[in-house]
Amino acid sequence: MADNIPLSFFALGGVGEIGKNMYVIQYGDDMIVVDCGNKFPGDDLPGIDLIVPDITHLVEHRDRVKGMILTHGHEDHIGGLPYILKQLQIPLYGTELTLGLVEIKLKEADLLGTIELNTVTPDSRLKFGEVDVSFFKTNHSIPDCLGVVFETPAGTIVHTGDFKFDLTPVNEESADLHRLADIGKSGVLALVSESTNAERPGFTPSERVVGKHVEEVFRAAEQKVFVATFASNVHRLQQVFEAARATGRKVALIGRSMVNVVDVSVRLGYLQIPDGILIEPEDIAKLPLDRIAVLCTGSQGEPMAALSRLARNNHRQVEVIPGDTVIISAGPIPGNERNLSRTVDDLFKLGAHVIYGPGSATGMHVSGHASQEELKLMLHLMRPRYVIPVHGEFRMLHQHKRLAEAVGIKKDHVFIIENGDVVEFQNGEGRVAGKVPAGRTLVDGLVGDVGNIVLRDRRSLSQDGILVVVVTLSKSLNTMLSGPDIVSRGFVYDRGSEDLLEQAKQIVEKSVHLFLEKPDARLHELRRNVKESLGRFLFEQTKRRPMIVAMITEI
Amino acid sequence: MADNIPLSFFALGGVGEIGKNMYVIQYGDDMIVVDCGNKFPGDDLPGIDLIVPDITHLVEHRDRVKGMILTHGHEDHIGGLPYILKQLQIPLYGTELTLGLVEIKLKEADLLGTIELNTVTPDSRLKFGEVDVSFFKTNHSIPDCLGVVFETPAGTIVHTGDFKFDLTPVNEESADLHRLADIGKSGVLALVSESTNAERPGFTPSERVVGKHVEEVFRAAEQKVFVATFASNVHRLQQVFEAARATGRKVALIGRSMVNVVDVSVRLGYLQIPDGILIEPEDIAKLPLDRIAVLCTGSQGEPMAALSRLARNNHRQVEVIPGDTVIISAGPIPGNERNLSRTVDDLFKLGAHVIYGPGSATGMHVSGHASQEELKLMLHLMRPRYVIPVHGEFRMLHQHKRLAEAVGIKKDHVFIIENGDVVEFQNGEGRVAGKVPAGRTLVDGLVGDVGNIVLRDRRSLSQDGILVVVVTLSKSLNTMLSGPDIVSRGFVYDRGSEDLLEQAKQIVEKSVHLFLEKPDARLHELRRNVKESLGRFLFEQTKRRPMIVAMITEI
Repeated sequence: MADNIPLSFFALGGVGEIGKNMYVIQYGDDMIVVDCGNKFPGDDLPGIDLIVPDITHLVEHRDRVKGMILTHGHEDHIGGLPYILKQLQIPLYGTELTLGLVEIKLKEADLLGTIELNTVTPDSRLKFGEVDVSFFKTNHSIPDCLGVVFETPAGTIVHTGDFKFDLTPVNEESADLHRLADIGKSGVLALVSESTNAERPGFTPSERVVGKHVEEVFRAAEQKVFVATFASNVHRLQQVFEAARATGRKVALIGRSMVNVVDVSVRLGYLQIPDGILIEPEDIAKLPLDRIAVLCTGSQGEPMAALSRLARNNHRQVEVIPGDTVIISAGPIPGNERNLSRTVDDLFKLGAHVIYGPGSATGMHVSGHASQEELKLMLHLMRPRYVIPVHGEFRMLHQHKRLAEAVGIKKDHVFIIENGDVVEFQNGEGRVAGKVPAGRTLVDGLVGDVGNIVLRDRRSLSQDGILVVVVTLSKSLNTMLSGPDIVSRGFVYDRGSEDLLEQAKQIVEKSVHLFLEKPDARLHELRRNVKESLGRFLFEQTKRRPMIVAMITEI
Repeated sequence: MADNIPLSFFALGGVGEIGKNMYVIQYGDDMIVVDCGNKFPGDDLPGIDLIVPDITHLVEHRDRVKGMILTHGHEDHIGGLPYILKQLQIPLYGTELTLGLVEIKLKEADLLGTIELNTVTPDSRLKFGEVDVSFFKTNHSIPDCLGVVFETPAGTIVHTGDFKFDLTPVNEESADLHRLADIGKSGVLALVSESTNAERPGFTPSERVVGKHVEEVFRAAEQKVFVATFASNVHRLQQVFEAARATGRKVALIGRSMVNVVDVSVRLGYLQIPDGILIEPEDIAKLPLDRIAVLCTGSQGEPMAALSRLARNNHRQVEVIPGDTVIISAGPIPGNERNLSRTVDDLFKLGAHVIYGPGSATGMHVSGHASQEELKLMLHLMRPRYVIPVHGEFRMLHQHKRLAEAVGIKKDHVFIIENGDVVEFQNGEGRVAGKVPAGRTLVDGLVGDVGNIVLRDRRSLSQDGILVVVVTLSKSLNTMLSGPDIVSRGFVYDRGSEDLLEQAKQIVEKSVHLFLEKPDARLHELRRNVKESLGRFLFEQTKRRPMIVAMITEI
């Protein structure tokens, strides 16, 4: 009986965190993956470029993995592809814009042509074994987003993807409420719903509110206006172009991802640029100051992005001069506050008028994620038997659980899970039934994974540096042939610390002589002895604990 | 004519930044210092414990420095003392509580007894040469705060210190409006005013609003309630004790600075603890859960502070159990957001009910700094001819300048300065007239200053680690005596990278053999050659650039 085949859901990334989203729906032996994101490392992971999900479980069961559905084109949903697809070649499914952005990534990773890309629309239907997959349109801060419906003999799981309800969206339709109502009416076993803004009361404002504020500034400003925003927020870009048209400004683009996204969005019809509005950065100098708008990357104060370079007066084509206006049309992602503050400070120092701060105060930014009332609206429409909050740190999942309870979901029908926890549904009943391997893969250069020892060493090196001692000795001749030589990096500056390093050498010499006097002493004992006595001495003198490497060779 | 002796003002720390406040008023040859703070380093200063002002200028003119006035006992105003006083022994002046907190610092630094400590009150008058110094009481997030008035033949400079106007303060008087009015009436040449909240519209709420919210939670909660706040916010502590009394709870203290501050505040009469309320942490187990409140440090999510240890279930005396409540009674200082989020997440995982987020939403925190309307009120009361905004990052100083202009100060009578800029007043006219050395001194362990090369090395080491190559060779014998030995730290893990390191050795060997073949080759050329060829090879293989140290010895 089909009903006895279990239906399960698990996350390989995205619960207990914001970033590296990757979810799996499994019915019988068939697995369908949703999204493949990356995440940026915090200060606790020095030298790491990116974090992507650990897909050991998928690789071990590669025959069962039928395909991957991409809900939208944000980095935390597609940014892991270049790394994951090298280990697991599976067909991808996504909307036109999503796949357009994926293509840019695959091209850069030299993977284009090796992966099957299947374009879907909100009306598409797919079938993977006994799983019927259909979609619904959602609103978010990038066009062409999907929610996904998985209908199986064991029941229906709905995955919202990232969403908000924008009832006056820009250049697209609102989320399809009637389709959502139909899905809910036909019975939803489990709703997997995002939780990013589960801490925020109310209803996220419509994207449209930003446009009129931008237009007001474009109209009033007597000089250039810079707008820094996420390149992928095509709705935002559209509004900037429209504000430019309404106020007689031309628009230049700065930043590689801004140029890339505008290119693909125009080509695929997601962005309509009014004729004659777009100019090259080098043309800015030819126009009066009050006829210019500049769309740029760097809204998070990223040190190498366009806005920060402008703020440091370090951009080769364009400059910010006293009287220019800069609009920060984005909220700071947690962890970026200091960089952004520095950039704003630098812009003020150049004499710019800077519009910054929370979007609720400036009107220059709205979130792309559902606030509490919208999460409740989704729950009402779906009327699910079970709820699995995803896409959030623990406290957000927890707040989402409270919202679910508030609209009448039973307390023990809301699963707060960790990456790897398997929620299994059988005969209409759900439970957490085991765990698959899940973790993080650290990307640093070409090498796929950096271990804990390397990271621990990096953290330690960054605190107090390293001191290397080299000694060459001959036990048979009973003498030190060369050394001790000492080199330090990141500890004290050699010039100016001659005394300290000279005394350190004497301590090493003393250890070596003691060693040479003892006929049965072993080299590893000498190494340990050097490290200990030197460590003690340096801590007494400096209150620092550099890493000590003793390279003692016997010839 | 006395009027021709210039009066000047400069900052050695505190403008263009939040932290390490240190200001100097100079009349003729006499210098009076205001405050001596520290600042905590960001991620760009790995391994650094603290930043304090560079006082080269004061040390060079030590005979002219007459004394230091401490406006209040916060770290960013007194935290630099243990370092600075070692270079410059000058008399300190401060209120009773401020000096009580200073004494704790001096004791820890073994400086107690070596420095002259002079207690002042808001009514004290001091005279340094021809400078008359008087004070006024301000409200802030610690008791016993002072503003300072410097009357000189060349005019009067008023320094606000940190302030807000709290019209319903807790356990103290409101700022003395009549005294402020008198100062303003008698003529102020320049107002030096803090700018922390210059970006915030409105009027900062009174400290008193927090008390009733805490009391409500104490009354409603069925188990333990933890309140995490800054230890030095004695008004806040007072309200927690009063809420405990009103609701029949006992209060335990956790965290070293919490115990220290409560101790000195009670001893000096700034904190009144109702009889029988205070208990030891080990007594918590003896009381019913709903009779307990815990005051703890760690409101910023600092990894080693009490709250984070509680959240990790890693405190030796007290634990947070499901159903307990935790109040975060503080705002996050920029840069601490991630740590605090992690702590809140961990507390939720323990099953606690956590009250967190902006004080404006929770009612559990108010700022100690003047918002825009209060800054304007101060400007109105003082009616200064010149304004120098201090205590803020550039954008805050800039916003403060706009407020000053809004209340009628002339645009060119507001000086936005940098640390070191000297504002000189002569014949009633002010101008920026030069610069004294000003910068930051980095404290790392005992050593007073860490240079740029050491910091650059630490940053580099934290990114890709280090690889050390050791070779001993004999040019006369034309042979390599030992090596190449290679050790890496923070680059790749040795086990699992045997092939890579073996190939690296071969590259070194090749360079050494080439060297030995050339009769006139120089050792430093070999070193350079090894570093270059190895660096190229490793980057090709791993896309990482570890630091390479080649220790090649010739015997």
